[in-house]
Amino acid sequence: MTDSHLGPVSPTTDALGVLRPLPLDAVRLDPGGLLGEWQDRNVAATIPHCVDQLSASGTLENLRRVTGESDREFAGMWFRDSDIYKTLEAAAWQLTHPGDAARLRDFLDTTVSLLAKAQQDDGYLNSYFTTVHPEKRWRELDWSHELYCAGHLIQAAVAAARAGVGAELMTITRRFADLIVERFGPDGVDGVCGHPEIETALVELYRVTGHRPYLDVARRFLDLRGQGLLGEGRFGPAYFQDHLPVRAAEEVTGHAVRQLYLLAGMVDVAVETHDTALLDASRRLWDSAFHAKTHLTGAHGSRHRDEAYGDPYELPPDRAYAETCASIASFQWNWRMLLATGEHRYADEMERVLHNAVAVATAVDGRHFFYSNPLHLRTGHDGSDEDAPSQRLSWYSCPCCPPNLARLMSSLHGYLATADDDGLRIHLYGAGTVRGPVPGGEAEVTTRTVYPWDGRIELTVAATTTRPWTLGLRIPGWCHGFTVEVDGVAVEGDVRDGYLRITRSWAALTVITLDLHMPARLVAAHPRVDAVRGSAALTRGPLVYCLEQADIPDGTVLEDVRLDATAPVRVDERADLPHVPVTLAAEGSADRSPSLEPYPDHAAGDAGAAEPLSLRAVPYFLWGNRAPGPMRVWIPVAPRG
Amino acid sequence: MTDSHLGPVSPTTDALGVLRPLPLDAVRLDPGGLLGEWQDRNVAATIPHCVDQLSASGTLENLRRVTGESDREFAGMWFRDSDIYKTLEAAAWQLTHPGDAARLRDFLDTTVSLLAKAQQDDGYLNSYFTTVHPEKRWRELDWSHELYCAGHLIQAAVAAARAGVGAELMTITRRFADLIVERFGPDGVDGVCGHPEIETALVELYRVTGHRPYLDVARRFLDLRGQGLLGEGRFGPAYFQDHLPVRAAEEVTGHAVRQLYLLAGMVDVAVETHDTALLDASRRLWDSAFHAKTHLTGAHGSRHRDEAYGDPYELPPDRAYAETCASIASFQWNWRMLLATGEHRYADEMERVLHNAVAVATAVDGRHFFYSNPLHLRTGHDGSDEDAPSQRLSWYSCPCCPPNLARLMSSLHGYLATADDDGLRIHLYGAGTVRGPVPGGEAEVTTRTVYPWDGRIELTVAATTTRPWTLGLRIPGWCHGFTVEVDGVAVEGDVRDGYLRITRSWAALTVITLDLHMPARLVAAHPRVDAVRGSAALTRGPLVYCLEQADIPDGTVLEDVRLDATAPVRVDERADLPHVPVTLAAEGSADRSPSLEPYPDHAAGDAGAAEPLSLRAVPYFLWGNRAPGPMRVWIPVAPRG
Repeated sequence: MTDSHLGPVSPTTDALGVLRPLPLDAVRLDPGGLLGEWQDRNVAATIPHCVDQLSASGTLENLRRVTGESDREFAGMWFRDSDIYKTLEAAAWQLTHPGDAARLRDFLDTTVSLLAKAQQDDGYLNSYFTTVHPEKRWRELDWSHELYCAGHLIQAAVAAARAGVGAELMTITRRFADLIVERFGPDGVDGVCGHPEIETALVELYRVTGHRPYLDVARRFLDLRGQGLLGEGRFGPAYFQDHLPVRAAEEVTGHAVRQLYLLAGMVDVAVETHDTALLDASRRLWDSAFHAKTHLTGAHGSRHRDEAYGDPYELPPDRAYAETCASIASFQWNWRMLLATGEHRYADEMERVLHNAVAVATAVDGRHFFYSNPLHLRTGHDGSDEDAPSQRLSWYSCPCCPPNLARLMSSLHGYLATADDDGLRIHLYGAGTVRGPVPGGEAEVTTRTVYPWDGRIELTVAATTTRPWTLGLRIPGWCHGFTVEVDGVAVEGDVRDGYLRITRSWAALTVITLDLHMPARLVAAHPRVDAVRGSAALTRGPLVYCLEQADIPDGTVLEDVRLDATAPVRVDERADLPHVPVTLAAEGSADRSPSLEPYPDHAAGDAGAAEPLSLRAVPYFLWGNRAPGPMRVWIPVAPRG
Repeated sequence: MTDSHLGPVSPTTDALGVLRPLPLDAVRLDPGGLLGEWQDRNVAATIPHCVDQLSASGTLENLRRVTGESDREFAGMWFRDSDIYKTLEAAAWQLTHPGDAARLRDFLDTTVSLLAKAQQDDGYLNSYFTTVHPEKRWRELDWSHELYCAGHLIQAAVAAARAGVGAELMTITRRFADLIVERFGPDGVDGVCGHPEIETALVELYRVTGHRPYLDVARRFLDLRGQGLLGEGRFGPAYFQDHLPVRAAEEVTGHAVRQLYLLAGMVDVAVETHDTALLDASRRLWDSAFHAKTHLTGAHGSRHRDEAYGDPYELPPDRAYAETCASIASFQWNWRMLLATGEHRYADEMERVLHNAVAVATAVDGRHFFYSNPLHLRTGHDGSDEDAPSQRLSWYSCPCCPPNLARLMSSLHGYLATADDDGLRIHLYGAGTVRGPVPGGEAEVTTRTVYPWDGRIELTVAATTTRPWTLGLRIPGWCHGFTVEVDGVAVEGDVRDGYLRITRSWAALTVITLDLHMPARLVAAHPRVDAVRGSAALTRGPLVYCLEQADIPDGTVLEDVRLDATAPVRVDERADLPHVPVTLAAEGSADRSPSLEPYPDHAAGDAGAAEPLSLRAVPYFLWGNRAPGPMRVWIPVAPRG
């Protein structure tokens, strides 16, 4: 078995961990499935769009200011280099796919040459602090993002190295990383970055290079957090997760992306250093995040002011911040926790956030994106502000999300399945092929499915060994019933910890048919989530659905629509909407005479005349691809008549 | 009748208007009533506290940097001068009260001398732009607050002039105002201030001086708005209300204080220039604000990010921004609309916002303040940030609110009553005395009441003329029933447009007893206010009530408490709580077994085991005066058994 193309997050063989990732070239997603479709759109549209935007927005030009090739003013925000690195990372992962990669290879080579020229003699590399404020180098770690940018450079180099194309980029990166070790290592100064990212990056660099100081300084960055090194900042130390030592924190706080990248780094350091206390801290913070601070779509962040988590159960659908990068970071953190523990809840979260909060960020054209992903766009919303636009935009003044989506999507197949001593486990369902080590050799499993549009998943053991091994199939947390057949014969499922495990001596071409029952489902929120009291959301399988103005009559205000929670919800697979294979059909009503009285007597009730109304719900991740208009996930439930 | 001491907002005799304010020395609040108590606390605690803080925070020192008396670094935000001016204004209004004013007079004289020294030869006066960025004078009107600060200087000078102590301050102010007219008048440049305030201030200055160019330039500042002079800013032009001409706007938008100060200026200009289109615009925006963008407490602003209004019906109780200055601005705008139109709804809003959103901002000690006034402080709230502290703070890095409270409270008696051709109208009920012109001469009415703790208001005609005149008494919008007696004899009320009008030839010492029925009342919100669906609020009279953690059993989470909306709510006038004369007693329950499941099946319902719980609610404006802890105004209603 070839493992030359390891994917993102490849712990060393010494690391703690229950599950092992598969190399990228051991997994393939077919374009017929939704995940494969997303990957194809990524390489066809999103990555080229990002490459174009790096030029159009002056981001690459910023590097040419360092090399003396440009005297234009520095463009955009001071941490723009990171957009280049994320796009490089996306391109590098993409090179592990078969197909025409000439353009990406060209982008990669050209950009790496530019980086080589822009790097300072001592290894430092940052266009802003080299050309605009050289006197501030390393002086304002709270806001400078220097280590954050370095982290993304490292992630790009790791990806390129794993894709086998990264020698020059790795040289550049190690020179910079060595400078970081020198400055911030045990013999250097105490400092941490206001925006975590360097921690997980350095552990990955250690994994590629085997150079222990990278791991040590990553651990040092964690240990130094919570000592006040970042100061008060504009939003207080919890904003940077610097209010408490990372092992003492009981609650996710502050800027959601920072918190989640930090958690990814905590798990990476924990497994490589066998620091179970650190892993326990991550677990505690997972409980805080997922019991009381995660939106139904898997998104994180409740406040626009500081892009931050709110108080427990503060989960407003209309002002959900739900930053795309936080969704991606949650996916990455959960993957690390899954590898470390083998517990299905992490894979459940990966599925949920991927199919909803991540997927919604990209338009069907692959070239427009949401930064913030609310669960309710109000009638009368002023969408003129980049902070909360009514439609996806092609780029942002802080364009962190689009290239982040690109790097996730180009490596998506790396997150589908794992190996362990018993065999293979499949965590995410997409049409494609998984090859991996099993007792006695290697096996290959081919998946045919239109999941999540249907719960039927047909897996064929395309190649196998003679020794028995276990095929583990995740039974999602949302699934309340399933059947499984092997070559057409119903078998009893052995479900433990969320995985159906079938152990046997497999014959080649054995077909396993897993049918996950996937009815429409009405969900409520925890009663402490005040913002959606008296409302329900429509879901099916991993998908959250929503109502869009385009599907209700003209003149009806979306906020006046009520759901009849007693009527059945029908799954409609013949919707003639472009891009929407399955809609949900529900019954409801619309209040036709809303009063103007803002605060009437309670006894007057919600008593306007209601007209029956048939409701059509579309997958949340596909909203906003028609005419702009209001949308809502949580639908007020009509009082029982 | 003496009218030497006119109060805030005194339109000229040529102005449009239905009602005329009374001079400050014609009205007196007794310390036995709530309004008088607030005024007394203001002079005893809040004004001295503000004076102290102006020194302690380095704000006065900033002016001494201009005069060369200090070489300390500029302290605080660049518009700190405005805090001095608001405190001066508070002191000036306070000088119209009888009593020992020596200390205030001293503060006033010393500060005015300092201002005189700090004023530049051409009349310009601004400590920041004189000492820190002289090259930016008038160059960054979008953020500079130069005209905003000038506006507050003018307001202080107007107050001092009306209090009869302002000659020197008026000289300083007119020199600056003349410079503003020269620069921004019809022969000057086109410019508007990013933070409105100058508009209303210049109209008041015109009223005091009769100098028409002040009015003209105020009008010009309005006319130039909406032409893009302020640029995009960080939050888009709607943030500064610069997205549309003021006469074209249909919706209140952006920074709430800016919007409301601008509206006050619009009314002032409209009435002095007989511009009914401008008055109509204010009326339209009033509908926008009060139908869909005002919290139950009368507070404005739904977003912390930009201190702004949200979309229609976006009114989250926990993240209500509800800035104290916006509440004060709403009071001021409604007063102007009341004078212009005589319509009771404006007086109703003044009462509501004063007794709830304004009153809550000050602690019972008069020395601690809220800047933001949420309607729900969650269990687990992180109150360590000045943006949303769990308790009132003694000062803020942007301390705009405390001196704003001080200037409102020291002039509060100016807002109680008005005169018109028929007689006197009383809008706000507080124990005290009102003297004013009536047909044939002057009359005096003395009020005895413990309103709003009780709805009984006893008014004595202490002095009168022989000709008949009308006493108008506001019947508040919240009041669904009342009785009125004259000298113990029930009379039929003639209620028109929200005012009970009694017209007769009054005999001296006639006693009118108005009894406003004031039962506890449960209110709901408009069904489009998603954030409080399924909840009710307890009110009584003008007061909103709330639950505090201090009144529920230890171990019970406030968010688990439910209200039984079918049980009667009892008014308890014997509560033994300090500072709280009347509490409300309701029945409810507490969920004892909240699940951890964040998103359960809807069919599972809100079905935890509920234990009955007696609830005690306290007036919202008094919350947070005991141990810090969660609070909520909107209480989820238990489903009917």
